[in-house]
Amino acid sequence: MAIFLRDVEVSETLSMDQMIEKIESMQSYYGNGEASNLPRRKIISSGGMLAVMGGGLFYEGVLGVKTYTVVKGQYSFQVSLYDAETGKLLCYTQANRLGQLRTGATTAVAAKYLTHNPDVTVGIIGTGYQAATQLEAVSKVRNITNIKAFSRTESSRKLFAENMSDALQVPVTAGASAEETVRNSDIIICIAATMEPVINGEWLADGSTLIAAGPTTWRAKEVDSLTLTRSEKIVVDSIDQAPNESGDLSNAVDQG
Amino acid sequence: MAIFLRDVEVSETLSMDQMIEKIESMQSYYGNGEASNLPRRKIISSGGMLAVMGGGLFYEGVLGVKTYTVVKGQYSFQVSLYDAETGKLLCYTQANRLGQLRTGATTAVAAKYLTHNPDVTVGIIGTGYQAATQLEAVSKVRNITNIKAFSRTESSRKLFAENMSDALQVPVTAGASAEETVRNSDIIICIAATMEPVINGEWLADGSTLIAAGPTTWRAKEVDSLTLTRSEKIVVDSIDQAPNESGDLSNAVDQG
Repeated sequence: MAIFLRDVEVSETLSMDQMIEKIESMQSYYGNGEASNLPRRKIISSGGMLAVMGGGLFYEGVLGVKTYTVVKGQYSFQVSLYDAETGKLLCYTQANRLGQLRTGATTAVAAKYLTHNPDVTVGIIGTGYQAATQLEAVSKVRNITNIKAFSRTESSRKLFAENMSDALQVPVTAGASAEETVRNSDIIICIAATMEPVINGEWLADGSTLIAAGPTTWRAKEVDSLTLTRSEKIVVDSIDQAPNESGDLSNAVDQG
Repeated sequence: MAIFLRDVEVSETLSMDQMIEKIESMQSYYGNGEASNLPRRKIISSGGMLAVMGGGLFYEGVLGVKTYTVVKGQYSFQVSLYDAETGKLLCYTQANRLGQLRTGATTAVAAKYLTHNPDVTVGIIGTGYQAATQLEAVSKVRNITNIKAFSRTESSRKLFAENMSDALQVPVTAGASAEETVRNSDIIICIAATMEPVINGEWLADGSTLIAAGPTTWRAKEVDSLTLTRSEKIVVDSIDQAPNESGDLSNAVDQG
């Protein structure tokens, strides 16, 4: 008999630490060809869209499908998990919370392997649905000494800064601008999914690490081309999927 | 709140007549570009596979995803249905029964539009999981006067013939061979999903209609090349999907 879960039950049973451990091992197995990814596909309707993606963790004996709708900016995620050895449905779950944890954990794994110092300052661009779990996740792998947060609406970023100060027990302030937020940060998280770049490559300090986690479409751009040309290393979670889904990279590829 | 259904509830609430009506209208809208199809994709694991496909019926305001596993020849289907206007999950259902009804109904729509006589004789190759609903569906759109059924195992085809005689109140006999089953039938249904052809084009009577409903992979072959070259018309339900999923057609395309 399959288990059916709602977001509240996912929140109660799954911690960010557990998710980071799972994402870290998954990326390692995936890099070795022991996991499989079905890249996202979308059906666009007049009112919104439906997206479908899937994957297999052969080393854990599970296969899964994620579906979600986006209508008027509202997302609704579901995941079906199957036993690869029996074909049985193990679990069907709301996956809004799961997606927040997963996206955050992916950023944490990036921070863990792409930065060196144990103590870091963090700048985050975007204070929406995915932002809090980004910071929570990084706080699990690095000692964050200070956070600046920026988004277009002043009241939003101020509220976010207050809430995150309380939640993480770290000084979080609302940045006056994207530039001020980016300059002097060791780790910059971009979770804005904007169509126009919000990061100017000139702002980045030497040795800083930019984690662009937002876009899922080639039309999006979070960072400008200078950001990419200034980068010593560009690391993606999926070589197959990045050129299609990371607008920052697909635009760069188009421009040669 | 979404509805969760099991196969038994689908069986109790959805009739073959209703499904034929839905498939008929869907094919019409799909032909006019008012429905969308995400072709099947598969993740192959050591023990089996997971398949995912999706679709949108824009004229009904719904979007859906179908997932299924195949392990050791056992299928397990699920469907998620969403409201395209709100993005809300409407229904998550076991879809084994739904798939039988849908595949049968598609054959019925083919029989309705591709054959002319009200009274028909039917030959069916394959007496497995999808066979009974194929005959039930055709019986809804044509007056079947006689049925011959063939499959590799004599006891299977005899049992199938007995059961279907009772169910449809039509004379159903087990054919002695594929050839005998095909010759003199007005409608031939192939639901065997074999890797080697079971239909020889020489056997087909002039004016007969062959409905090949089995394969979902380019590796499969149900009919030989003579069957295709003898055909006056070849009709498919999806121009996009047929060349990849109907092994009969993809092999023919490869051979020019």
